Amino acid sequence: QDWRSRGRAAILRYVLFKWTFCLFIGIVAGAVGFFNNLAVENIAGFKFVALSNLMLADKYWTAFWMFTGSNLALLMFATAITAFVSTAAGGSGIPEVKAYLNGVDAPDIFSLRTLVVKIVGMITAVSSSLHVGKAGPMVHIGACLGAIVGQGGSRQYHMTWRWLRYFKNDRDRRDLVTCGAAAGVAAAFRAPVGGVLFSLESLSSWWRSALIWRAFFTTAVVAITLRALIDVCERGKCGLFGKGGLIMYDVTAENITYHVADLPPVILLGVIGGILGSLYNFLMLKVLRLFSIVNEKGRAYRLLLAATVSIFISCCLFGLPWLAPCRPCQKDDCSSTSQSGSFMSFQCPPKHYNELASLLFETNDDTIRKLFSSGTNDDFQKSSILVSFISSYFLGIISYGVAAPFGLFVPIILTGASYGRLIGMLMGSNSNLDHGLFAVLGSASFLGGTMRMTVSVCVIMLELTNNLLLLPLVMLVLLISKTVADSFNPNIYDLILKLKGLPYLEDHAEPYMRQLTVSDVVTGPLRTFNGVEKVGNIVHILKTTGHHAFPVIDEPPFSSSPVLFGLILRAHLLSLLKKKYFQPTCTISGCDVTKHFVADDFSKRGSGKQDRIEDIEITEEEMEMFIDLHPFTNTSPYTVVETMSLAKALILFREVGLRHLLIVPKSSSRAPVVGILTRHDFMPEHILGLHPFLKKSRWK
Amino acid sequence: QDWRSRGRAAILRYVLFKWTFCLFIGIVAGAVGFFNNLAVENIAGFKFVALSNLMLADKYWTAFWMFTGSNLALLMFATAITAFVSTAAGGSGIPEVKAYLNGVDAPDIFSLRTLVVKIVGMITAVSSSLHVGKAGPMVHIGACLGAIVGQGGSRQYHMTWRWLRYFKNDRDRRDLVTCGAAAGVAAAFRAPVGGVLFSLESLSSWWRSALIWRAFFTTAVVAITLRALIDVCERGKCGLFGKGGLIMYDVTAENITYHVADLPPVILLGVIGGILGSLYNFLMLKVLRLFSIVNEKGRAYRLLLAATVSIFISCCLFGLPWLAPCRPCQKDDCSSTSQSGSFMSFQCPPKHYNELASLLFETNDDTIRKLFSSGTNDDFQKSSILVSFISSYFLGIISYGVAAPFGLFVPIILTGASYGRLIGMLMGSNSNLDHGLFAVLGSASFLGGTMRMTVSVCVIMLELTNNLLLLPLVMLVLLISKTVADSFNPNIYDLILKLKGLPYLEDHAEPYMRQLTVSDVVTGPLRTFNGVEKVGNIVHILKTTGHHAFPVIDEPPFSSSPVLFGLILRAHLLSLLKKKYFQPTCTISGCDVTKHFVADDFSKRGSGKQDRIEDIEITEEEMEMFIDLHPFTNTSPYTVVETMSLAKALILFREVGLRHLLIVPKSSSRAPVVGILTRHDFMPEHILGLHPFLKKSRWK
Repeated sequence: QDWRSRGRAAILRYVLFKWTFCLFIGIVAGAVGFFNNLAVENIAGFKFVALSNLMLADKYWTAFWMFTGSNLALLMFATAITAFVSTAAGGSGIPEVKAYLNGVDAPDIFSLRTLVVKIVGMITAVSSSLHVGKAGPMVHIGACLGAIVGQGGSRQYHMTWRWLRYFKNDRDRRDLVTCGAAAGVAAAFRAPVGGVLFSLESLSSWWRSALIWRAFFTTAVVAITLRALIDVCERGKCGLFGKGGLIMYDVTAENITYHVADLPPVILLGVIGGILGSLYNFLMLKVLRLFSIVNEKGRAYRLLLAATVSIFISCCLFGLPWLAPCRPCQKDDCSSTSQSGSFMSFQCPPKHYNELASLLFETNDDTIRKLFSSGTNDDFQKSSILVSFISSYFLGIISYGVAAPFGLFVPIILTGASYGRLIGMLMGSNSNLDHGLFAVLGSASFLGGTMRMTVSVCVIMLELTNNLLLLPLVMLVLLISKTVADSFNPNIYDLILKLKGLPYLEDHAEPYMRQLTVSDVVTGPLRTFNGVEKVGNIVHILKTTGHHAFPVIDEPPFSSSPVLFGLILRAHLLSLLKKKYFQPTCTISGCDVTKHFVADDFSKRGSGKQDRIEDIEITEEEMEMFIDLHPFTNTSPYTVVETMSLAKALILFREVGLRHLLIVPKSSSRAPVVGILTRHDFMPEHILGLHPFLKKSRWK
Repeated sequence: QDWRSRGRAAILRYVLFKWTFCLFIGIVAGAVGFFNNLAVENIAGFKFVALSNLMLADKYWTAFWMFTGSNLALLMFATAITAFVSTAAGGSGIPEVKAYLNGVDAPDIFSLRTLVVKIVGMITAVSSSLHVGKAGPMVHIGACLGAIVGQGGSRQYHMTWRWLRYFKNDRDRRDLVTCGAAAGVAAAFRAPVGGVLFSLESLSSWWRSALIWRAFFTTAVVAITLRALIDVCERGKCGLFGKGGLIMYDVTAENITYHVADLPPVILLGVIGGILGSLYNFLMLKVLRLFSIVNEKGRAYRLLLAATVSIFISCCLFGLPWLAPCRPCQKDDCSSTSQSGSFMSFQCPPKHYNELASLLFETNDDTIRKLFSSGTNDDFQKSSILVSFISSYFLGIISYGVAAPFGLFVPIILTGASYGRLIGMLMGSNSNLDHGLFAVLGSASFLGGTMRMTVSVCVIMLELTNNLLLLPLVMLVLLISKTVADSFNPNIYDLILKLKGLPYLEDHAEPYMRQLTVSDVVTGPLRTFNGVEKVGNIVHILKTTGHHAFPVIDEPPFSSSPVLFGLILRAHLLSLLKKKYFQPTCTISGCDVTKHFVADDFSKRGSGKQDRIEDIEITEEEMEMFIDLHPFTNTSPYTVVETMSLAKALILFREVGLRHLLIVPKSSSRAPVVGILTRHDFMPEHILGLHPFLKKSRWK
């Protein structure tokens, strides 16, 4: 029920606000993405320069301790703020955003606290040489921005503005979160179109044409903001390492040509990428399960786990380059300080460089840029690339188990790039394609194999490499790798969603749902209210059940027979109880009761603190009084007849985006409401728990 | 109700078929797009060469007659086959596809006959120097391919294959049509990502993530097919004019730079583009209204109208260049034969060229390529570009009124390009941007102003010009022009949809719908059937009403009180009557009755001929028999309570994609069904007709 009656001016203001908010989200997301990047570049850059200088001075042990110590400190900081300030900020946040857009309100995911922890934690975690990325958190950051703007600031910190709290309903807030997520992707990859498509393909559950436009506007703002900031930086005002700018891998070869003969290696890349990707998902799930056992034991265990992982990775990174031989520098770019795009000498004599070190002792972005660059077929040897691939494959999996804010995108791109380059090298003279191109296609195939996105990844890759001619090849690779990987397991975000136990509603019905009717899955006693209800009853029911909505039924003497009047939300009941506008007798109070309430009292709260029944104090006397629920009830809830097939009810529930679905009886002789369906009633676990025999016939 | 019980093998086959069909659609759409293009290039090319030769020989009148005559002949042919063979092939077809994907089955739009007429008519119409394009028809052609493949061939021409007729339900067919439409755009613009986005943004009303992937696969196939065919053509096997290939405007300047100072002219372009675009829509609507009066009078009038338009346009095109002065050739490319990319001498002496002629006597593609090309700031004068802009603006509007198969995209791009270049010239030294870039941005702004698409147009422009660096500018221009134009009138396809009277269901409810309940808009007597119904009654009701579905109600003695059993479709009733499996008495026949029918009997027919009640002959004796409707009834139709708000019912109707929505009463004392809602009941005209007082409060 819409509590607003909109006039023309209100509509205009509403539209204006929507666009202003999108503009704001775009600018802030662009700025945050830019400064994140800058911070990571500078922190990691100083670390690598110090390391390089110590290595040049042959102080190997000092270098090792410095490296391990700084990594440990950075990661411990990130883990600590996540554990002590906002647990919701851990991980990439993409599964949570996806669940939110599906209708699952996880607690605290969009608070201001989470936002701050996410930004700070991401910068430190990514700087700590873990194999993690900053794209996932950017999505979450963008979504946070959207949600916070949508609810008009953070209630918890009293930073709310009345005139900003304009978007009270779920739909508007969801729209803003979608735009924010798109802005996050756009800021992370500098890919405005890719950002919109990413939101569309893999995040949002509902979509309208108008929203595409708004999301597109937001990402356009992000792109323009980024461009302006990069312009500033190119004048050299952004610190020592700020010139690298954002992730942007120009594959400089301008006229890539390919023919039918080049297809077999590309297809091979796709197939292997699919297999490796599904294996990655499988291993990731195992590691996450294992680590979450540790993480759930307490904060100390979390920190311990993070410390272990950090030290292990530091050891790996520092130890592996000793395996690689020293090679003489071919060009002049073999500088000793590890600045972007150069080669690192490590333990080698001057004018030599260590291949592995130059791949491992860099920010991930720089490594990817190196691997993607064309005309560098001879820079690396097979063995180095192989070691780099294996290390990034497994270190990526291990890293993600740590409960700190970081994402999966960049490590996957990195792993894919090294594996693609390896395939290119193994092809040798059998293929005319450049090894940099192989790296790009390898990244695409690995992204397709793990995340199973096609259009958005394709567009993001194109925008990253700024080369439209790659399109058919990237498409082909993505299609193949997704198809191959889909035959093994679902995509990584869905796996994480399931692991976290969020009740995500799929957009298609399982076959066995056709055999059930809605009345088969309803459980538990149904609580209903009368049209005019005693305060004591309401308090009692609210205290004893956790339901979020209750049917309101008119019984005699208000109607000739029990009739369903509508549905009232728990939150609205709580507001009513708080206002204490009770009446002494059991009568219909008439219309004037609504005058005592303003629409704002019933507007949806932000994701912060909710009202709780325990907090409301009601005297004994008031308990005996009555409330007329009629004016506050949603009089047109969606209903289904009890014999409706469950599959069809699911489609209704999902497509219309419901939270509660009333079940009415078929014959008129029974109570006017048979039950109430919620999201949890559609979960396969719930259904199969009620009807275990369906498990066998799952494929029938 | 799903008549299939799927086994594992059936699912596998189903999935395999879906992908094979997409592959097939992709290949065929790519091939059709390519050959269309080739045919147009060759027919128009020969015409222009002949014209040029005659002009060189100073035979001006002969040239004029030749030009006008050939144009007339080509257009008359296109109009004639449209009028006599398939009326549904007229126009661009995009509104019809959009309506189909919204759930409106217009007759005959996806038949094989329409497809053939569309292809042939488009080639001739576009060759006839009308200001029309081939992108719109390509969308329709792709959609046709999808629909024909989906229904397993054309029933009318007995070209059906049983094993191909696998997709019987609406959803699968709609998916294929969506993929086909995406393939059409991809083939027309060589823009695979743009094609997917176009389908998504402006055609389809429902969308799922899985469908994005399938559409993307289809467009990838199109892209690869096109590339292969172009490879063949580049070896010179495609006739004299086949080398131009597809529309593909490489803006050759590789490093376009722009700064904040360049924004004002870009914003100006956007604003003017929006105003011109909405004016274009307005004028287009007027012309279409005017012309449709003539067109509806009969086929002869149609042909006459087409002839008039053709002669008028030929005169304009031939007359205008005389106004332009002759200019000396600067480079060597001033060849006398009007091959692609060259300048035309027209009436000028040798070594001179006529600017206007070189813009007008070309295929539209070549003109656009000329306008888009950079580094040609001095090739044209302001006056020529102005004349060319005005002529293409108005000739485009006039051309589209002719009832032949052609689209709007290319003329809009052309008009936008010339207007953008004009602005660029007027800017003079105030802007550093290249005039070719101005032309590109002008096209974008004009597309945004007329079609109001943002993301898809943006991506299509990028793929057309193959330059990702344009992205922020194109985005900006599109956003501004769409915003400006949206404040005047809706987009052109919606205008045409409304003009054609197709009941398109918007995805948002009008504000006044909140004030109504569903029972307010139900009209007319409701026809219901009993669970076991007399044949005579069925025949009578089917003959006297045009409804497509009827509620089935169980009355005593089959139940204790009247109970809604389900909904039966007209088509299913007709199949039952045809089978004549009647029973002599009024009893429930049991389950075995379904054995006499195979699922195919009830599968949805193709868009071709439908069964009609008049065609079924039933004897007097049979009229007295009964049919047990129970096994054939959809037992779980979607229902709403009569007090449900109309706005909410519309959301349900639209999001779930319904055709019929049953209204059940609130109190149990009345008949179990109150009414049935169809698409037409949600049309604003219908609602406002019933409740005229709402018109005033439309903004309340």
